[in-house]
Amino acid sequence: MKSREIRLVRRPEGWPQPSDFSEAVVDVPPPKAGEVTVRNLFMAMDPAMRGRMTDARSYVPPFELDAAMEGSAIGEVVASEADEFSPGDIVLSSLGWRQAFTAPASAVALRDCSRLPPEMWLHATGITGLTAYAGILRIAEIRPTDLIFVSAAAGAVGSLACQIAKIKGNRVIGAAGGPRKAAYLRDELGLDGVVDYKAEPNLTRALAREVRALGEESIDVYFDNVGGEHLQAAIALAKPHARIALCGMISQYNSTDRPDVPRNLFLLMGKRIRMQGFLASDHRDIEPYLVADMTAWHMAGLLKSTVTVSEGVENAVEAFLGLFRGDNTGRTLVRLGEPSARAALPAARTA
Amino acid sequence: MKSREIRLVRRPEGWPQPSDFSEAVVDVPPPKAGEVTVRNLFMAMDPAMRGRMTDARSYVPPFELDAAMEGSAIGEVVASEADEFSPGDIVLSSLGWRQAFTAPASAVALRDCSRLPPEMWLHATGITGLTAYAGILRIAEIRPTDLIFVSAAAGAVGSLACQIAKIKGNRVIGAAGGPRKAAYLRDELGLDGVVDYKAEPNLTRALAREVRALGEESIDVYFDNVGGEHLQAAIALAKPHARIALCGMISQYNSTDRPDVPRNLFLLMGKRIRMQGFLASDHRDIEPYLVADMTAWHMAGLLKSTVTVSEGVENAVEAFLGLFRGDNTGRTLVRLGEPSARAALPAARTA
Repeated sequence: MKSREIRLVRRPEGWPQPSDFSEAVVDVPPPKAGEVTVRNLFMAMDPAMRGRMTDARSYVPPFELDAAMEGSAIGEVVASEADEFSPGDIVLSSLGWRQAFTAPASAVALRDCSRLPPEMWLHATGITGLTAYAGILRIAEIRPTDLIFVSAAAGAVGSLACQIAKIKGNRVIGAAGGPRKAAYLRDELGLDGVVDYKAEPNLTRALAREVRALGEESIDVYFDNVGGEHLQAAIALAKPHARIALCGMISQYNSTDRPDVPRNLFLLMGKRIRMQGFLASDHRDIEPYLVADMTAWHMAGLLKSTVTVSEGVENAVEAFLGLFRGDNTGRTLVRLGEPSARAALPAARTA
Repeated sequence: MKSREIRLVRRPEGWPQPSDFSEAVVDVPPPKAGEVTVRNLFMAMDPAMRGRMTDARSYVPPFELDAAMEGSAIGEVVASEADEFSPGDIVLSSLGWRQAFTAPASAVALRDCSRLPPEMWLHATGITGLTAYAGILRIAEIRPTDLIFVSAAAGAVGSLACQIAKIKGNRVIGAAGGPRKAAYLRDELGLDGVVDYKAEPNLTRALAREVRALGEESIDVYFDNVGGEHLQAAIALAKPHARIALCGMISQYNSTDRPDVPRNLFLLMGKRIRMQGFLASDHRDIEPYLVADMTAWHMAGLLKSTVTVSEGVENAVEAFLGLFRGDNTGRTLVRLGEPSARAALPAARTA
């Protein structure tokens, strides 16, 4: 069995380039005792991968050069010499950018797809879902009357953060770049206010306008995915005792300069704002509630589409680079294969 | 009865000047029904007064022009037509920069000085004490092994924050400007590390040196009184899950430019730092514990001197301007008078 894979061959400076990657075809050996062979169905693209391409100290180690890129994937067991797995099982792994692999059973984890489509484990019930869920419910501690501002609201985490808050009944203002994304926020996600930051000379004024259009003067919660000007606008418009969940600063992943905004941090004091950075990995304890809620919302038909799917491992680099061009709405997935007839999925798939 | 008072006659731009103030002598009428006449013993100088000199929207209204400056004072009731008060009672008021006044009984509050000297109600058991106490214990939530960094550590709030943490048994690194203050932190307050920021070209490097001298690599808590470069250094040296209590940004009270540091806010995410602004006024509920603890620590002789006292209302402006020159250590008080023989104080004052 052969597998096509994508390798990192050079550490990018600034924006990643196609030439930082190469493609290779490798043999996938049959499983030895305790191993499984998995054919991937979907893999997920994550802006945080950019950080791991740099050889710098961080909370996760950097990617190796000349090796296949790591990343979350959901796949189907096609051969097993491990007692815990049988062919047809759907499993999550982090070996990423390849069509298939053989690995110790400990490298994969069974996922129940009897009520959820496999790709949901890469998003709504996966790490992006946990990030949105923990950020909105545990870090920002939203309350029923809160007006919530979300930046990068058309992104993977942002779109789920918006949806969780909307399903809970809160009003949500989202910011995103460009008319296509703004339309997505308004028409698909049904947000109560939308800021197209690329069309606005002054982000604070634009946010203020959306807040006032809802009959309010301030926001209670800001779910921050970008930092910089968005964070400054949120602080300026924040109500006393507002909460800010710092989730990501995608605007800075490719930056070689240090950001010089926000410049209004002194407002945190008078407004008694709580600003908290977080990583989903600290909140694994609430995963069962994430899965329970997302399953119910999926079965109820309440979850809007928050994925953009590319086809084939050969398009993975292009899909990844698209994250930084801001091409996509929602989570960026790459379809690597189709499930077999014996895959452990419901006969009629719900999604 | 006459009273000398200090009035604000012009709203300062940037640093306040002596010419922004004037002195006047007024008649203090005898109390009418429901009123008391109070002779002030001490008044307190507060950097936050600078904010109220500006006619800008804030969490408290601005001072009026051509009226006596408001501010906390502790005094002795010398005449009373109110049932609640008798001559000799020690009372707290916020009518500030004057030797004496007649006011409705509701404008003053009785303070128990049987175990504490009157001026302690302007500091350790007053609003600066509550700020330090709530900030260290409730906002920063210090734990027994935490290494704590305090900026403006020789200031009113900072010196108490340091002391609370030291009395609890924590290790504390303090930052202050100039050799006199550095010596105060080391010799008087007994801090474990000291940074004289005026002598250091790089604050982050200086803090790192003090941290390593204690055998540590990072700080757990930062009690921020200044913002800017200090905040940036603290974020750089913070341990994962560190807590930052934002108490004041004195370096910015006179600033007409917006600060352009910290520029490392993105670290809040990976380090999961919680940064929280707060105002003591939200924490009145723990005042009884503040008073109980400070009383015990005072009686035990554990509290070091954290006041600088000027003599006479005519030196109030000079004492106030000194706050912004960084002249003083601890709380700046002005002595306005001596208690009478009938003041409700213990026969032998404990000090």
